[in-house]
Amino acid sequence: MSFTDTPATTPKLAQAGPGALDVAQQTVGILGGTGPQGRGLAYRLAGAGQRVVIGSRAAERAQETAAQLGLGLTGHSNIEAVRRSDIVIVTVPWEGHAATLKEVREELAGKLVIDSVNPLGFDSKGAYALRPEEGSAAEQAAALLPEARVTAAFHHLSATLLTDPEIDAIETDVLVLGENRADTDLVQALVDRIPGMHGIYAGRLRNAHQVEGLVANLISINRRYKKHAGILVAGL
Amino acid sequence: MSFTDTPATTPKLAQAGPGALDVAQQTVGILGGTGPQGRGLAYRLAGAGQRVVIGSRAAERAQETAAQLGLGLTGHSNIEAVRRSDIVIVTVPWEGHAATLKEVREELAGKLVIDSVNPLGFDSKGAYALRPEEGSAAEQAAALLPEARVTAAFHHLSATLLTDPEIDAIETDVLVLGENRADTDLVQALVDRIPGMHGIYAGRLRNAHQVEGLVANLISINRRYKKHAGILVAGL
Repeated sequence: MSFTDTPATTPKLAQAGPGALDVAQQTVGILGGTGPQGRGLAYRLAGAGQRVVIGSRAAERAQETAAQLGLGLTGHSNIEAVRRSDIVIVTVPWEGHAATLKEVREELAGKLVIDSVNPLGFDSKGAYALRPEEGSAAEQAAALLPEARVTAAFHHLSATLLTDPEIDAIETDVLVLGENRADTDLVQALVDRIPGMHGIYAGRLRNAHQVEGLVANLISINRRYKKHAGILVAGL
Repeated sequence: MSFTDTPATTPKLAQAGPGALDVAQQTVGILGGTGPQGRGLAYRLAGAGQRVVIGSRAAERAQETAAQLGLGLTGHSNIEAVRRSDIVIVTVPWEGHAATLKEVREELAGKLVIDSVNPLGFDSKGAYALRPEEGSAAEQAAALLPEARVTAAFHHLSATLLTDPEIDAIETDVLVLGENRADTDLVQALVDRIPGMHGIYAGRLRNAHQVEGLVANLISINRRYKKHAGILVAGL
């Protein structure tokens, strides 16, 4: 395991209490920010007043998306987006997950990574969960990025709802996974900035696979009920 | 695959519409009905007016539990409980899952099986999802019981809440998985009999693993927040 409870790279965050983390002052970079999920998260976070930069393989496409969304967003190559960010959300398709992370590995050292990728397969019967060799997309990220602070969150959000300007608040809980309390607290604080969303700590990265795979069930639910289903945790 | 869309063994159910299924007239057997989860489900279902029989390896222990719970419950050996049931809920520990099902395989032919077993491991860092060779407990049941109608549900319920007589309604959604619409409709109708619970179709058995494994995340949530968390599906 490459995880420690208090990484030497984040003394400031490790000292801050759960309520005191000033996530509002941090810049969030979104890798794969031109895809539906990335666009949606950029739109919601920037709309909540967060400073957000969009990364893409092609800087021009990122700039195009940023210009379309407005809200002070800027677009860059993935590597430049990471350089400008304190927190990096990974929303690339599963097929490009490992390659994208390898490309920006050095720039991610010491930074907070939020993996939101769901490894899924599709056939005539619908969607099903894929099982990465490392156990999950989040564990693959942790294995590829030993110097970054890898967490996982934002798996169960409908891109349709995220990008709908008619919807002010999306009432949903966001399961947050990670090895380090200061990091998961920071991710929860970031989630809580988005109207309607609430970040819930939901375990270590070794329990990320079932959270990622649950999207296959949400797709089945959406097909059956013709809705955009999300997850809420009852009883908290 | 041994599943078909319209099993020849259930002409009556296959003809009935989703709303017309008369689940109230069926007897529910609970294998492992002396454990906390089985006791809790027996208590809730019998309390809702369902005819319920409790099965256990030792008939005396099942009779003891039935007498303690009251509500017209009776206790039997596992095999006798299956013989008396139309619907069988499996709530045995994962370690005894395969052995119990093999023992009652013939008696389960043609019957509706609801697997609720969560294969979990535990160590000093908490709970984690185990991955059965067949993919999930539910798929193991389907492989062992080619003549039964295997579904999966009731994974995320707190035994503490289920057995608490002070709690009248448990507000939670129950994810229901299966290959056959008539069977999953029947399971949803059974879930809906329990005050506060709502059955939601959530996909085929190949997507059962992440539903079973999510209990590891609920255990992490319960540890962090000192609650008995459940799952709700938002947006339906």
